[in-house]
Amino acid sequence: QPTEERNNIPAFTPSQKKRLEALLMPEEVIPDPSENLNFQELESSLVNRRKKDIVKIYEDDRENQLGKIERIITKFFVDRGFLEIKSPILIPIEYIERMGITEDKELFEQVFKVDKNMCLRPMLAPGLYNHLRKFDKVLPDPIRIFEIGPCYRKESDGSQHLEEFTMLNFCQMGSMCTRKTLENLIDELLEFMDIEYEIVSDNCHVYGATIDVLHKDMELASAVVGPIPKDADWGITKPWIGAGFGLERLLKVMHNYKNIRRASRSESYYNGITTNL
Amino acid sequence: QPTEERNNIPAFTPSQKKRLEALLMPEEVIPDPSENLNFQELESSLVNRRKKDIVKIYEDDRENQLGKIERIITKFFVDRGFLEIKSPILIPIEYIERMGITEDKELFEQVFKVDKNMCLRPMLAPGLYNHLRKFDKVLPDPIRIFEIGPCYRKESDGSQHLEEFTMLNFCQMGSMCTRKTLENLIDELLEFMDIEYEIVSDNCHVYGATIDVLHKDMELASAVVGPIPKDADWGITKPWIGAGFGLERLLKVMHNYKNIRRASRSESYYNGITTNL
Ligand SMILES: Nc1ncnc2c1ncn2[C@@H]1O[C@H](COP(=O)(O)OP(=O)(O)OP(=O)(O)O)[C@@H](O)[C@H]1O
Ligand SMILES: Nc1ncnc2c1ncn2[C@@H]1O[C@H](COP(=O)(O)OP(=O)(O)OP(=O)(O)O)[C@@H](O)[C@H]1O
Ligand SMILES: [Mg+2]
Ligand SMILES: [Mg+2]
Ligand SMILES: [Mg+2]
Ligand SMILES: [Mg+2]
Repeated sequence: QPTEERNNIPAFTPSQKKRLEALLMPEEVIPDPSENLNFQELESSLVNRRKKDIVKIYEDDRENQLGKIERIITKFFVDRGFLEIKSPILIPIEYIERMGITEDKELFEQVFKVDKNMCLRPMLAPGLYNHLRKFDKVLPDPIRIFEIGPCYRKESDGSQHLEEFTMLNFCQMGSMCTRKTLENLIDELLEFMDIEYEIVSDNCHVYGATIDVLHKDMELASAVVGPIPKDADWGITKPWIGAGFGLERLLKVMHNYKNIRRASRSESYYNGITTNL
Repeated sequence: QPTEERNNIPAFTPSQKKRLEALLMPEEVIPDPSENLNFQELESSLVNRRKKDIVKIYEDDRENQLGKIERIITKFFVDRGFLEIKSPILIPIEYIERMGITEDKELFEQVFKVDKNMCLRPMLAPGLYNHLRKFDKVLPDPIRIFEIGPCYRKESDGSQHLEEFTMLNFCQMGSMCTRKTLENLIDELLEFMDIEYEIVSDNCHVYGATIDVLHKDMELASAVVGPIPKDADWGITKPWIGAGFGLERLLKVMHNYKNIRRASRSESYYNGITTNL
């Protein structure tokens, strides 16, 4: 059933519109039906454009955008004195409880459990806490570490949430752990990525008072100025600052995607281009 | 209880030996007890050496070895015309069945299930199959793609198996999909990594006849010259070749680790150095 019928020109059905939207890149628009292109002509012209886009990547660059942004941000933090961490993705459920995410908290319901005692990490904080505690006996002050990698949460809202996403979490412990240092790091990163943002203060189950980084209505990151009471449960006794960013949200902003899915680990999109061609 | 007592010099207990082994790097040896160093002196001298090793990484390089080997191998394949893929790690269980891994197969028992219909991928093949099928309509012949990322298997044997490991899988579909091309790619990669190997033929549940790449007694990779009957279940109709390597096994060989755990995503080791200091 056409959604619209005007001057005898059939408009697109909802499923045709959906198909065209998947084929369009963010800067493109569905042509006005009065231009009198029928669906088949339009679809096949867009399919050809998208094939050319993927062929161009294959010939010129061949880098996956999620892999590439991880490499770029890794270099950014390594260059600024942060140690690169790669900790387990499959973690003990006990870590979730120790993060203060007890059964009554919203995030508790979002955790993917695996077997009896394990789960997919919903955040990078437990692994970073453990590294900070161990490195406190090893590294000179201040300690700066970061991790980039997969995180998992059960979500319902679609356009800016994925169940499988990629988190960046950087933190510093010891000297100079001020809100100013934290905001400078966030500013330097987002300047470097050429992403506009504003900082607002918010409240969070796990950390208490948090600083959120927004782009328009979308949260790019939550940041914390420690210390916080829960540190004691992780054997942490020094001041710290830290922030967690979603890499797919950064890609969504950079490429102006309507839906975060284009930026995700996916079989349906390659570098934001539909692979259903 | 000392394991050995000689000339009145107490030898090390099993737990002391274990601690010293964790503190030693592969090139080092536990000193002869007749050198008359007691456990506490030895432990504290090794702890200091390991702290210095980590501080040196923090000051000079700051790259995680697992992250770094992923980046090096990514560049290797991108430079040789392979497209970088990042597909979901959390996949439908249906993919496992479609890979021919039915309930009667050993690998079936090794899969970590998540909720009712999902599991952690034990291999990269399903995602690559789906990309090959889709790109067959898009990319020029031959199609060359690869992925590097986490895979999960329940394992019992410890010294060369991890439950969470990192697979590299590269493949080519279309022209020139010969055993010669495959062996040349394997040879070029392992030459580049400076790793000695030999190739032997083997049999495998999923693929039938396979080519294994060994370093001494350890399998580094399994490789396949397609086509194989199961291709039809993935909509693949052209010849292909491919190989899957474990990155932690490559690191184990490169750094001469006794146990693969030193090379894994871990809170107990950083770049092969114990973090329990
Ligand atoms: N499901 C998700 N999909 C994609 N990115 C996410 C998801 N959940 C969190 N992130 C990213 O990780 C960052 C830090 O995680 P945090 O726990 O603060 O998220 P959050 O406050 O739950 O975000 P939201 O309110 O949007 O659900 C977020 O700012 C966001 O960029
Ligand atoms: N549990 C594991 N831990 C680390 N690496 C692994 C593991 N399982 C497989 N790999 C790596 O992935 C490669 C390809 O996977 P494949 O399915 O051929 O393994 P496999 O034949 O089961 O290996 P093995 O016989 O050693 O268990 C292996 O050659 C190995 O390098
Ligand atoms: Mg949320
Ligand atoms: Mg938040
Ligand atoms: Mg095996
Ligand atoms: Mg094998």
